[in-house]
Amino acid sequence: MRMEMEIQLTNTPIAEQLPAPRSNVGAGAWVEFRGVVRGEENGRPIAALEYEAYSPMAETEMHRIIAELAGVHPCLFVRVIHRLGMVPVGGAAIYVGIASRHRAAAFSLLSEFMNRLKQDVPIWKRRALPAAHT
Amino acid sequence: MRMEMEIQLTNTPIAEQLPAPRSNVGAGAWVEFRGVVRGEENGRPIAALEYEAYSPMAETEMHRIIAELAGVHPCLFVRVIHRLGMVPVGGAAIYVGIASRHRAAAFSLLSEFMNRLKQDVPIWKRRALPAAHT
Repeated sequence: MRMEMEIQLTNTPIAEQLPAPRSNVGAGAWVEFRGVVRGEENGRPIAALEYEAYSPMAETEMHRIIAELAGVHPCLFVRVIHRLGMVPVGGAAIYVGIASRHRAAAFSLLSEFMNRLKQDVPIWKRRALPAAHT
Repeated sequence: MRMEMEIQLTNTPIAEQLPAPRSNVGAGAWVEFRGVVRGEENGRPIAALEYEAYSPMAETEMHRIIAELAGVHPCLFVRVIHRLGMVPVGGAAIYVGIASRHRAAAFSLLSEFMNRLKQDVPIWKRRALPAAHT
């Protein structure tokens, strides 16, 4: 099955409204996920997370992981936007939008991609502490 | 954990851009799902699906299922919008938006809710065939 894929690493905030993960082929499911920076990491308060990547390798690796997962969980369209730089509490660090014929494939691809991303993709984060703690 | 819940059955098309499933408490994950009408059902071409519900019971049952699932998969906010009436091919029949602290809870609640919805909630669909087939 042919699948469209868009992968983007960006220093710009991820828009709250993005175009739907639409597909020309008959999609039955659109799934969108945003990973948002919470006010604490491992129980310690933070003000922001700062993301840094080895970009060419991170993009190649994300392509590879998605292509591999789509072999098991066939999807029609996958869009990934990952933030770099400072992301304040409440801001999205990552967006994933998926269209698939059947919802189960999109759910599985999303969940497994997020696990693999943390393990295998060279993107690092640093805590920025609230002013009172610095 | 306190959870906000919004459930809506509606004859109006589900907007492509909806407010984010935002939570005042520190959400780390926003997940949004749309179930879209495909051009075929069980291999037969269709033009639309027509949804009908026993509305008060469908709403009560959706509340009950979500509350039960949230006991196992704690989430902060759940919004469900289900279409009634004619939904053409490409249109969304259902929207689910979830915010949770950790993504795994939102993924599990979404996936299990969709399974339970089809089994337990009194919403029925009828195929509307393409003109050539009527």
